[in-house]
Amino acid sequence: MSFRLSEIARFIGARVRGDENYEIDGIATLTAAQPNHISFLANRKYRRHLSSTRAGAVILNDADSREFRGNALVVVDPYVGYAKAALFFEQSRNIPGGIHSSAVIHETARVATTASIGPHVNIGAGAVIGEHVMIGPGCVVGENVRVGERCRLVANVTLCDGVQLGRRVLVHPGAVIGSDGFGLARERGKWLKIPQLGSVIVGDDVEIGANTAIDRGALDDTVIHDGVKLDNLIQVAHNVRIGRDTAVAGCTAIAGSVTIGERCAIGGGVGIAGHLTLGDGVQVNGMTFVSKSLSQPGTYCSGTIVEPHHNWQKNAVRFKQLNELMRRLKMLECRVAQMSVSRPDSNNDDESDGTQR
Amino acid sequence: MSFRLSEIARFIGARVRGDENYEIDGIATLTAAQPNHISFLANRKYRRHLSSTRAGAVILNDADSREFRGNALVVVDPYVGYAKAALFFEQSRNIPGGIHSSAVIHETARVATTASIGPHVNIGAGAVIGEHVMIGPGCVVGENVRVGERCRLVANVTLCDGVQLGRRVLVHPGAVIGSDGFGLARERGKWLKIPQLGSVIVGDDVEIGANTAIDRGALDDTVIHDGVKLDNLIQVAHNVRIGRDTAVAGCTAIAGSVTIGERCAIGGGVGIAGHLTLGDGVQVNGMTFVSKSLSQPGTYCSGTIVEPHHNWQKNAVRFKQLNELMRRLKMLECRVAQMSVSRPDSNNDDESDGTQR
Amino acid sequence: MSFRLSEIARFIGARVRGDENYEIDGIATLTAAQPNHISFLANRKYRRHLSSTRAGAVILNDADSREFRGNALVVVDPYVGYAKAALFFEQSRNIPGGIHSSAVIHETARVATTASIGPHVNIGAGAVIGEHVMIGPGCVVGENVRVGERCRLVANVTLCDGVQLGRRVLVHPGAVIGSDGFGLARERGKWLKIPQLGSVIVGDDVEIGANTAIDRGALDDTVIHDGVKLDNLIQVAHNVRIGRDTAVAGCTAIAGSVTIGERCAIGGGVGIAGHLTLGDGVQVNGMTFVSKSLSQPGTYCSGTIVEPHHNWQKNAVRFKQLNELMRRLKMLECRVAQMSVSRPDSNNDDESDGTQR
Repeated sequence: MSFRLSEIARFIGARVRGDENYEIDGIATLTAAQPNHISFLANRKYRRHLSSTRAGAVILNDADSREFRGNALVVVDPYVGYAKAALFFEQSRNIPGGIHSSAVIHETARVATTASIGPHVNIGAGAVIGEHVMIGPGCVVGENVRVGERCRLVANVTLCDGVQLGRRVLVHPGAVIGSDGFGLARERGKWLKIPQLGSVIVGDDVEIGANTAIDRGALDDTVIHDGVKLDNLIQVAHNVRIGRDTAVAGCTAIAGSVTIGERCAIGGGVGIAGHLTLGDGVQVNGMTFVSKSLSQPGTYCSGTIVEPHHNWQKNAVRFKQLNELMRRLKMLECRVAQMSVSRPDSNNDDESDGTQR
Repeated sequence: MSFRLSEIARFIGARVRGDENYEIDGIATLTAAQPNHISFLANRKYRRHLSSTRAGAVILNDADSREFRGNALVVVDPYVGYAKAALFFEQSRNIPGGIHSSAVIHETARVATTASIGPHVNIGAGAVIGEHVMIGPGCVVGENVRVGERCRLVANVTLCDGVQLGRRVLVHPGAVIGSDGFGLARERGKWLKIPQLGSVIVGDDVEIGANTAIDRGALDDTVIHDGVKLDNLIQVAHNVRIGRDTAVAGCTAIAGSVTIGERCAIGGGVGIAGHLTLGDGVQVNGMTFVSKSLSQPGTYCSGTIVEPHHNWQKNAVRFKQLNELMRRLKMLECRVAQMSVSRPDSNNDDESDGTQR
Repeated sequence: MSFRLSEIARFIGARVRGDENYEIDGIATLTAAQPNHISFLANRKYRRHLSSTRAGAVILNDADSREFRGNALVVVDPYVGYAKAALFFEQSRNIPGGIHSSAVIHETARVATTASIGPHVNIGAGAVIGEHVMIGPGCVVGENVRVGERCRLVANVTLCDGVQLGRRVLVHPGAVIGSDGFGLARERGKWLKIPQLGSVIVGDDVEIGANTAIDRGALDDTVIHDGVKLDNLIQVAHNVRIGRDTAVAGCTAIAGSVTIGERCAIGGGVGIAGHLTLGDGVQVNGMTFVSKSLSQPGTYCSGTIVEPHHNWQKNAVRFKQLNELMRRLKMLECRVAQMSVSRPDSNNDDESDGTQR
């Protein structure tokens, strides 16, 4: 299925320089592109490939387009233009709908005729699978799950009973959505399991990375709002709420009942303790432990800076003496102040010193 | 399958206020409950739902029960009562035993007639599956694995060859039990793989979270004792031993040959270095790196407190100068002490200051 | 399939003491071994089992071999000898090639006749599976994937489209190779997905742990060189390059475009920020956050040392005052220096004190 450059240009907001009726059927890098592909130049380091590319057209900024003899789609930000062109092809794809013979679909599940269900997929009772959905090999879709139109479960994904996905949700292999929250009550030293009666509600245009796990809520639901992007190997505990257009990098652990605002950027390997609230626009550096709520936008950090072991060890030992160190400093300050008081002649110098800083 | 309130009350240790012959067949939240459900009030914030609930009965404490006109099961701790009621229904469930036609069961495996084996399950040679076990879609059970009665593997779980699960073990999707330990020997800069000949032995009433991995032992076994609760995305390396009723939160990494005592509570994102021992009752805060053994009960931490980036950076740079800072403080203390000695008049003041702290 | 001791000895570089025609068909621990097994003693704590073992032969160092009456294979390092013996049996195994009837193989895929394809495996269009490859139950192999000879995918592994594995690559359950990198462009507060057009290239003799995820490159490929060993639950982001014979422990997160050198040892729970370079021979301690490139070999750390909560809290509060603490120390130093200057008699003492340190 191919498209005229003019159609692509309209979708991505570009100006065509060259043959606007030229037909394109896919996207590729400058070095890999064939005449039926569109390519792009978003990073200066690939500029040398521009003269030799076989691409039928290239997405460029104005300056680069002047040096290019082929068809160009001219935009302000070629990186954004490239992302949008990819989205154009993604939305235009015509999946061959159909259910593989090895898939097991419960008789009460409803699967749209345009949906594609791969080999060894299992779909439980009462599940509803929307138009143009792609469910890859080995995925498990529990009872009463709802999967909105144009979602894609790549492979070996598990959606537990009752989970709801909005539209255009992309779930990478090994992700688990709707596993039981870690709810325990202690009675005489033994743990009693608290049933997890809530579910997971995922909005539109969400991406969920490989082997990421999102637990169902205990009573209320766990909620992932529209446009949230979750990387790989993230733990989202029960009753977490993640606001619209927030992105979270890999290996981050979000404990139970945390609320994260909109448009936040959470780094990789971060930990967020239970029941905290992060306001809109909060950014958290990689490997930070968030142990208190962060209401103001801004960037937050914890930890120390990497050092050679030899130096680190000496400093780390001193960290354990920090409170004592401060006590000794204060004591010394008092002592020196007393000594200064008994020698009024040096007092003025000290004051002037203090105001310089 | 429904039960009289009196039966439920006996199991959870409650007193019935109302119709003790009223019949209940499930558990639900106050807002979702229908007349055939029992509900509960464990958190003050849901109290307003008490007057409008359609639940056939509610688990309450004595004070709340006086204000409730419906059937009540009165207990000291409604949260524990609720957990026990859920356990009551869980243990009473009658799974329709049977093996799905798409499951592949080796001819030498033994599957109890009351066990339920889902679609696309694979069970290897010599495996033994106990009574009332539920194995969900896509699970892989290796050769000579033993799964005790009433275990549940939710979906896409992998149990490698020779792994043993006790009774009532609940394993969430994507968990892997019995993968090879990370055993390597170096020879002239190359890694040689050390075969992992041990297995994983899991006790009764253990819960294992989504995408958690538990490696088999190198020579001896990795051992998870009765009542241990493991959250999602945890790494349990080879030859780890986790004592009875210990709980571990998500994304924690436990290195090889670590021994953790009984009734410990390990936070999320924690790292525990190899070959260490944590005594009974140890609690570790989230994101702590445990780099030495902890023999005494109590709570342990490492790291620093989250700060705005601007402040953090200044402090983190100073951390790298901590040892030097301490050296300068000591030098200053000496210098001041020498100065004081040469001025005996101020000496008494200093001493009195010292004893105040 | 059994082998004479002389054959095994030649492979592992051992000297035979005893019957070199004795036949062995497997490897086992001293306590589990039967007369058809070879065992080994690599750790003093198991020495007491030497007199009672039923093993047909034991790999020993020279000293221990003198006290053993059975057949011995004498080597300098029995741990390395054991690893090599295991490799000998591994390479000698004769897998019964064949494709399980429940596997779904695309008509354009090529599977070597000596390869073994397990139940519920899916192999996509254009994939090429080499000689003696073992693909266990539930694995998904995408389109145009190449799997080199003697690779083993244990179970429930996902290889996404276009991924290439070298020879003898061992992939543990739940691992995902070739998932989309976390590539996003922001436009007016919304995230646009950047298509991930690269792939993942894995060299020979690589091991990839359970539930580890390796993302495909954005434009170029993600590259894992020969002999790399990755533990469980590791995140390898797009365009990462890991050099030959580097080992990475569990739960480590490696951000996009990181380059790690050869023969590095990266601890567990480590985070490495994006676009950094680690030189050959770098070692990183567990739970370290690598926030800058490390060009020199050596061992690196960050963080603080675990402490009881009571102490830690006091010190952690002081960390937030570290820059201020340093400012006060400097001020005090100035003040004391000024006081010393005004009292020349004490000046010499101070200087001598300074040089002692």
